[in-house]
Amino acid sequence: MFKQITILGPGLLGASLLQAAKRRGMCERTAAWSRRAETRAKCQGQPWCDAVFADARKAVAKADLVVVCTPVDTIVPLLEIIGPKLKPGALVTDVGSTKSLICRHGRAALPKKVAFVGSHPMAGSEKTGLEFADPELFQGRACFVTPLVDTPAKDVDKLTRFWKDLGMEVATTSPEAHDEIVAHLSHLPHLLASALCAYLSTRDPKWRHLAGPGLRDTTRVAAGDPALWKAIALENREEILRALDGFQKELDLLRAALHNRQPFALQNLLERGRDYRVRLRPLGDKG
Amino acid sequence: MFKQITILGPGLLGASLLQAAKRRGMCERTAAWSRRAETRAKCQGQPWCDAVFADARKAVAKADLVVVCTPVDTIVPLLEIIGPKLKPGALVTDVGSTKSLICRHGRAALPKKVAFVGSHPMAGSEKTGLEFADPELFQGRACFVTPLVDTPAKDVDKLTRFWKDLGMEVATTSPEAHDEIVAHLSHLPHLLASALCAYLSTRDPKWRHLAGPGLRDTTRVAAGDPALWKAIALENREEILRALDGFQKELDLLRAALHNRQPFALQNLLERGRDYRVRLRPLGDKG
Repeated sequence: MFKQITILGPGLLGASLLQAAKRRGMCERTAAWSRRAETRAKCQGQPWCDAVFADARKAVAKADLVVVCTPVDTIVPLLEIIGPKLKPGALVTDVGSTKSLICRHGRAALPKKVAFVGSHPMAGSEKTGLEFADPELFQGRACFVTPLVDTPAKDVDKLTRFWKDLGMEVATTSPEAHDEIVAHLSHLPHLLASALCAYLSTRDPKWRHLAGPGLRDTTRVAAGDPALWKAIALENREEILRALDGFQKELDLLRAALHNRQPFALQNLLERGRDYRVRLRPLGDKG
Repeated sequence: MFKQITILGPGLLGASLLQAAKRRGMCERTAAWSRRAETRAKCQGQPWCDAVFADARKAVAKADLVVVCTPVDTIVPLLEIIGPKLKPGALVTDVGSTKSLICRHGRAALPKKVAFVGSHPMAGSEKTGLEFADPELFQGRACFVTPLVDTPAKDVDKLTRFWKDLGMEVATTSPEAHDEIVAHLSHLPHLLASALCAYLSTRDPKWRHLAGPGLRDTTRVAAGDPALWKAIALENREEILRALDGFQKELDLLRAALHNRQPFALQNLLERGRDYRVRLRPLGDKG
């Protein structure tokens, strides 16, 4: 239980988080900061938002928990700004999709009197903005908590408890392991969907009216915000390049099997893919 | 309105089709043939299936419309078997995901007294089997009708009317144009999802518990039947290889932008992908 939770950047994730925390009685009061006057106006008077600030330093001054929900390339600069105004003993985390750079530079940007541990709740959407906020967004989903080697265990436990109270299943990894894993499970699939759509956009535009549900699902993530994803891709560049190279080998196998009319090689690849997919984590499953 | 519709291969598509035709009063009676005794037993006594046959020739003998819903590599052999038993004036179609080979060899396999026009309703699923049948499966989805140059217009019209009566939006193309289009909109996305899953299966198996909704959606189709998709890929091999080569160029651009840390090139690709995706045919939209 926190006295005050402050969200910096109340978009889809941040607003959902405050709604969920309010509903579950996880804090006495909530506060939000947004750079944009339009977003601040939308937060005003919402039942899940007790105070709205135009100055991030004022928004965090009384917070016991600060969750930074802004684009990955703005998180460390924001931590530098709020650092001097944080309460001693406050816990700070972020929800960025990359962790190595943020955790290393984020810790260094903050005073020693506050705790910093990175997070990454795997509960986003191609939709952005607090209009789509949903207090059940986190239920049954996976969340990374990524301490550095010298992060105190009590801070990790406190943050883990927070995400579990929101209904999430928490995995604790190093920031580096996180970045390797999400390069494979999130960034590579996203970039492949984007590259597929970019390629299809070069073909006959009338074809798009003939698409079935398969193409819609395989490319849903490509509707995500290009600026956000450009920043994520550049921050996790090395791991994504490694994942791309591994995928490329599999794609080359597939192309060779098709080109050389090798039914057994083709079926083997399709079977390996099917076996992986049917054992993938189900949505909303806490097991 | 047909007197009798016969389905050869009452799986997801075939059973859904009979359910929809019954519900909409599109025929007086229905019949189904399956090679498998287990499937025939499941059809027995179903309200949407008036007769079940173990012999495909008997199943089609009284049919005005025959819809072949078996795997793509079995369609032409099956047409050769049923050909001599078809009623004069019967209309025969199939729902195979490839069209050039099936339409050319299918027409040649049938007697001149019957009409043959290929179809491809874009309403499948990674699920197979009549257990998942749904009479609303076709509503608002796209359907290809693929006549040859010498197919009589009245046969094309009759088949087009049938799919429209099921709620589908019909596109008439040559079999060759169909194969190029679905290589891009269906086969390439499917194979990319399979290659992605096959690659992920080579990495740490514990990672799969950390996947979010994005990976689930982008790879849903990879859960499809490997034998069915191997046959589709080999039948449409040349168009798929061309689509793969086009996609590879886009993927190479993406890799280079990331490798060379080119934010503008990266954002441009992501924007082109986003712009394509947000204008993609919506599900269930008839417009």
